[in-house]
Amino acid sequence: MRYLTAGESHGPQLTAIIEGLPAQLTITAEMINKDLKRRQGGHGRGRRMQIETDTVDITSGVRHGKTLGSPVALVVTNDDWKHWTHVMGIEPLEEGLNPEDVKRQITRPRPGHADLVGGMKYGHTDLRNVLERSSARETTVRVAVGAVAKQLLSELGISIVSHVTEIGGIKADTTKSAGLSVAQIRGIIEGDPVYCVDQEASKLMVQAIDEAKENGDSIGGVVEVIVEGMPAGIGSYVHYDRKLDAKLAMAVMSINAFKGVEVGMGFEMARKPGSQVHDEIEWNQEQGYIRTTNRLGGLEGGMSTGMPIVIRGVMKPIPTLYKPLQSVDISTKEPFKASIERSDSCAVPAASVVAEHVVAWEIANAILDKFHSDQMPQLLESINQHRAYTKEF
Amino acid sequence: MRYLTAGESHGPQLTAIIEGLPAQLTITAEMINKDLKRRQGGHGRGRRMQIETDTVDITSGVRHGKTLGSPVALVVTNDDWKHWTHVMGIEPLEEGLNPEDVKRQITRPRPGHADLVGGMKYGHTDLRNVLERSSARETTVRVAVGAVAKQLLSELGISIVSHVTEIGGIKADTTKSAGLSVAQIRGIIEGDPVYCVDQEASKLMVQAIDEAKENGDSIGGVVEVIVEGMPAGIGSYVHYDRKLDAKLAMAVMSINAFKGVEVGMGFEMARKPGSQVHDEIEWNQEQGYIRTTNRLGGLEGGMSTGMPIVIRGVMKPIPTLYKPLQSVDISTKEPFKASIERSDSCAVPAASVVAEHVVAWEIANAILDKFHSDQMPQLLESINQHRAYTKEF
Amino acid sequence: MRYLTAGESHGPQLTAIIEGLPAQLTITAEMINKDLKRRQGGHGRGRRMQIETDTVDITSGVRHGKTLGSPVALVVTNDDWKHWTHVMGIEPLEEGLNPEDVKRQITRPRPGHADLVGGMKYGHTDLRNVLERSSARETTVRVAVGAVAKQLLSELGISIVSHVTEIGGIKADTTKSAGLSVAQIRGIIEGDPVYCVDQEASKLMVQAIDEAKENGDSIGGVVEVIVEGMPAGIGSYVHYDRKLDAKLAMAVMSINAFKGVEVGMGFEMARKPGSQVHDEIEWNQEQGYIRTTNRLGGLEGGMSTGMPIVIRGVMKPIPTLYKPLQSVDISTKEPFKASIERSDSCAVPAASVVAEHVVAWEIANAILDKFHSDQMPQLLESINQHRAYTKEF
Amino acid sequence: MRYLTAGESHGPQLTAIIEGLPAQLTITAEMINKDLKRRQGGHGRGRRMQIETDTVDITSGVRHGKTLGSPVALVVTNDDWKHWTHVMGIEPLEEGLNPEDVKRQITRPRPGHADLVGGMKYGHTDLRNVLERSSARETTVRVAVGAVAKQLLSELGISIVSHVTEIGGIKADTTKSAGLSVAQIRGIIEGDPVYCVDQEASKLMVQAIDEAKENGDSIGGVVEVIVEGMPAGIGSYVHYDRKLDAKLAMAVMSINAFKGVEVGMGFEMARKPGSQVHDEIEWNQEQGYIRTTNRLGGLEGGMSTGMPIVIRGVMKPIPTLYKPLQSVDISTKEPFKASIERSDSCAVPAASVVAEHVVAWEIANAILDKFHSDQMPQLLESINQHRAYTKEF
Repeated sequence: MRYLTAGESHGPQLTAIIEGLPAQLTITAEMINKDLKRRQGGHGRGRRMQIETDTVDITSGVRHGKTLGSPVALVVTNDDWKHWTHVMGIEPLEEGLNPEDVKRQITRPRPGHADLVGGMKYGHTDLRNVLERSSARETTVRVAVGAVAKQLLSELGISIVSHVTEIGGIKADTTKSAGLSVAQIRGIIEGDPVYCVDQEASKLMVQAIDEAKENGDSIGGVVEVIVEGMPAGIGSYVHYDRKLDAKLAMAVMSINAFKGVEVGMGFEMARKPGSQVHDEIEWNQEQGYIRTTNRLGGLEGGMSTGMPIVIRGVMKPIPTLYKPLQSVDISTKEPFKASIERSDSCAVPAASVVAEHVVAWEIANAILDKFHSDQMPQLLESINQHRAYTKEF
Repeated sequence: MRYLTAGESHGPQLTAIIEGLPAQLTITAEMINKDLKRRQGGHGRGRRMQIETDTVDITSGVRHGKTLGSPVALVVTNDDWKHWTHVMGIEPLEEGLNPEDVKRQITRPRPGHADLVGGMKYGHTDLRNVLERSSARETTVRVAVGAVAKQLLSELGISIVSHVTEIGGIKADTTKSAGLSVAQIRGIIEGDPVYCVDQEASKLMVQAIDEAKENGDSIGGVVEVIVEGMPAGIGSYVHYDRKLDAKLAMAVMSINAFKGVEVGMGFEMARKPGSQVHDEIEWNQEQGYIRTTNRLGGLEGGMSTGMPIVIRGVMKPIPTLYKPLQSVDISTKEPFKASIERSDSCAVPAASVVAEHVVAWEIANAILDKFHSDQMPQLLESINQHRAYTKEF
Repeated sequence: MRYLTAGESHGPQLTAIIEGLPAQLTITAEMINKDLKRRQGGHGRGRRMQIETDTVDITSGVRHGKTLGSPVALVVTNDDWKHWTHVMGIEPLEEGLNPEDVKRQITRPRPGHADLVGGMKYGHTDLRNVLERSSARETTVRVAVGAVAKQLLSELGISIVSHVTEIGGIKADTTKSAGLSVAQIRGIIEGDPVYCVDQEASKLMVQAIDEAKENGDSIGGVVEVIVEGMPAGIGSYVHYDRKLDAKLAMAVMSINAFKGVEVGMGFEMARKPGSQVHDEIEWNQEQGYIRTTNRLGGLEGGMSTGMPIVIRGVMKPIPTLYKPLQSVDISTKEPFKASIERSDSCAVPAASVVAEHVVAWEIANAILDKFHSDQMPQLLESINQHRAYTKEF
Repeated sequence: MRYLTAGESHGPQLTAIIEGLPAQLTITAEMINKDLKRRQGGHGRGRRMQIETDTVDITSGVRHGKTLGSPVALVVTNDDWKHWTHVMGIEPLEEGLNPEDVKRQITRPRPGHADLVGGMKYGHTDLRNVLERSSARETTVRVAVGAVAKQLLSELGISIVSHVTEIGGIKADTTKSAGLSVAQIRGIIEGDPVYCVDQEASKLMVQAIDEAKENGDSIGGVVEVIVEGMPAGIGSYVHYDRKLDAKLAMAVMSINAFKGVEVGMGFEMARKPGSQVHDEIEWNQEQGYIRTTNRLGGLEGGMSTGMPIVIRGVMKPIPTLYKPLQSVDISTKEPFKASIERSDSCAVPAASVVAEHVVAWEIANAILDKFHSDQMPQLLESINQHRAYTKEF
């Protein structure tokens, strides 16, 4: 499978095309919309999230609720486009119009954003041409793509959830999520303002967000994604670019503002002896091979072990601050104080939803690499045979 | 550019083919051999590292010391192959031979290795068929490939180094490496047993390694790679899979036993407000645009900013322990205690060398994506024009 | 660059996303629409072509007529969709509805189409699920994508045209097009009902098409694409999958109903001695290196020579015939006579337009592989430097 | 699957790495060597073919005759290397040596070869740096790679053969090969000097080759590849770059000196009405769906139909002629007459062997895309289930 996305933050729409989905998979816009809504939630979002509700249109590849095997196109219309038809107009400006009147030209790059370097790269002296695409708005349609992948996984008995484990230095007590299933975690976080399993930490996180907002500042955090029901042997050790953990790391790091990723115990492994890091192996008739612990996060040798996959990513604080940061106007080379009027003070809960979806995509893709992949019934049969085979291996 | 590697740990040789190198690049086996030697060093290695010295043969793509533009093949011969011609023989076994006599068949998967899942995936009941390829032996030839990339970067004024920042819970004082250039860091670590800049921490790390060895245990650690001289605008924000940080994360996570990766301040960003995370922008005639700090590790919006790239990875303790871990024999399903006779107790210094080389590859590759890429003189001219252009942008 | 397309023949729309275009390229819907119109023309088309006029909407990646460097999305709305909302509905059928009432289910595969094998592959017992995507309707959006590539080439001084050289056994006199420029050929064919340079052959082709129609039959033909203004050295001999002629062959063969492709003298080369096949090389101050003939069609060693690229493809007769062909109903396994009520009797002129556009894409893509590729001004400078360099080489 | 090749014509060796082969596939050097020998045969070859015998060494990915799932490396040593260690030396020239003494520098590009354009592209003023890689010598290792693919196909019940259908204007009577199986064709051509089924045409072809040689000229021809035992549904219509015929066209056109490719009736389809081009469909209990003819060459809608795949390619006459062609010395810009002392006068029989092998690779690769692909037993089971399923579809 592969996909491409297109769309600017204030353009008419976001678009994605997914190529390579098996036929006979049930997809509806409704299922995707639920995840789009989760992405728009979470304490700490600015006003835009409150006034817009993203919904998807499926414009090809699906008939009567089932995939055709042909490419699936997804469209998320920007409700706000009507106010931007001039500034973001696609056709050339009419003669006689002064570009500066209509363009809301931006020559002041914001630190921490793609503005300056993106301008250099593509030759944009109006930095709006950069920020319209580098904006996290694009993750909307990546969530839509991932929601399709999740539906595929679901039909194969694989479920996935994300939750927030840290915001602004407040850490959730991970023993509270440790024994829980994906469904249980989902149940808890759906009612939580920061998608956190630990209700006490959640309260402190909300406070921290509010404080950051008052200070004109922003805070980041850590999100965790858990995948349950994995068959063993997805990914491969035989070539470096086929390792599943490497692909997951790529996907998580590619989310806007993410600066780190770790699997299982992650960076803690630098502080523990090997005897406390590796997962012992057992076998019994009922379950086949199991690990008695899951410190490696369900991944050994670049492959799924059959244990839940556990992966975390860190999101930096949003760089759009009320508090001014020093920068330089590119047209005059004069310094200025970058500051803006409104922004999210924390987008970690939303980012957790994005992380869930980019992970879902990689997992689904790796599964299709290994198994019979043209139609869902054959794929399901193929994966179930494999489950039985690995149990008795 | 792209490359493939082949080779088993006890097979006749490791091979790599690199396709897409510009012509007119100076490459010699000698330059590559220096890096292969660094990979074999570091306190804590087992006996194999001491008895073998890896050297490379270039078998195509180079003539009189310069690349031709055609694919470059690299071969690292296994000196030890002569003892393995029977066990690892390539041709079918002669009739009458009892496979069990010659095969040193392995049915006991080691926890933390690819053994069990790899066996399931490829249908190997002799797990030697897995471990021969999943072994970190393969990183030898990835270092050779990266050494070629480093030579390319070097001709473009880009230098790269790795050093060890943590082993077994002992952290180096990072203020000691903070202001140093790549060349300075290289100068220091070359004389250090664990490739660490902080000499006091180094001593403690050596102690920790020795203790782990005495305990029959192993320890992991953290390595940092620094890339200096980067032009701005390598990578891109326009599509998720073109982000340079995502590609670097993939590369680092793909190294055997790596379980996490972070850029700049990394996971610390979850604990700081935005005003202490982002790097302010300045411009002056002499240097053009600069950041006054480099907390984001030289990457904004998935692109190089022109500041040094700083990326870290965590390596888990080596799973081959003297201390026994519980596992199951796949032929009998009986439990056993996995324990082995000799192994490295810490491979973090060696792994730092691997990290340096996989990062070098990704950087070189991303540079060739952007610039005129058939011959070195044109590439160098193209990149220098870009440097001048971004300075005045 | 890369692109994906989506869309069914009677679905709401066709969509394409192009990723990797340089910034600062001028694109307007109007330019693309001209080529879409050419694709809908040509003597021998059925009614659908006459009642619909395809036009494109650019929905992202372009602002005020210039590319942003971000992905470009193109949408061609199906005017006819309003009549198909039930049959091709995307959402699941409402309960109580009888699928057979709304689905216009097809169980009778047409020989020469993807129907039967596509049904097997994706598990579609309603073969409409196949033909909606396998239809040549998809080439509409491939033309739109190619029209963008042509605009890029045009800014680099590279022009491209296609013309029809054979239909239903009637061959154009190729000496009539031999000395003509791309612009001259375009001038002639725009007024011709079958896009043929030889006006006498054209008349006979029109007759042949009319006869085929009367007979309830269909005819195919040969189209030729010419690319002028090529820089030398696009493509490469160093690896088989980088040869430009191989990529062009792939592109032309991928057009619906194309069954052969040849470059320069093509299959005639099997009948001539080498001394009459190869192009002699000359050099003069004004033009640099030239070939005195162009029998190899502008390609040597998988690279452009700087001479015009000349490539031809053969299209089979459209398989949808009034004249019945024997087939089998997949639900009953009973034989039936496949025959339909209306169809094109010859789509070769339209297919010539498709060929022009898929070739344009491959050429543009190969050019971006070699040169500085983020912005048009830098790309143009890079390519002009190369032209000067190769002249004096 | 993917593969890379490396190696210069007079360098120490040719190398290939194949990544993605299933485990448990039987491969031996002996099987590959048979095909390497066929490639060196055929009337019309020059002296080099007679003095060298290519044989392969498998250096990784295989143990005791079976693939491991890890990358397979293949090496073909150049026996002649010992005479070229100076001219083609890999290490920099020793100081004091005059490069012109050792280099056999070439400044005179041969028409019809990659020499001139390759020199421009990579900046080689010694054109030996081009021709060493652009030489058809590289096809040796592509044959070795294809021989592995053929072995995979063979275990799945798919067989493949190539034969020569035209040389220098002499056409074989195709009715003589029409009804024959792959095995029968192989049986006949193995004893034929030009790998042609029609024994009378073969004699005339041999004469034509001898005449061309006497005239200091060369001749080309047409080769045909036939694949038997194909399951239906390999390839796909859903996206242009997944069409199997497009991939086959790419592969055949990528062979050195190939200038055209066609499937089934190919270019003849421009001369026949649709009713004489398409293949009618029947079904019976025993065979399932069959076509009563195979004019489309086993491919509909970019997918295999289950009928034999039939594909042809045209090879131009070898451009290295005794008869002089006009060219220009790049160092002086003076014209000269390009002529050489010894060469093949016809390499079509050898090229037919190459075509067989590049087609085998594409077919094998497309099969692995669709089916369970990690181990041969599971792949075979998966494909056999599919065969039963399509029969009853």
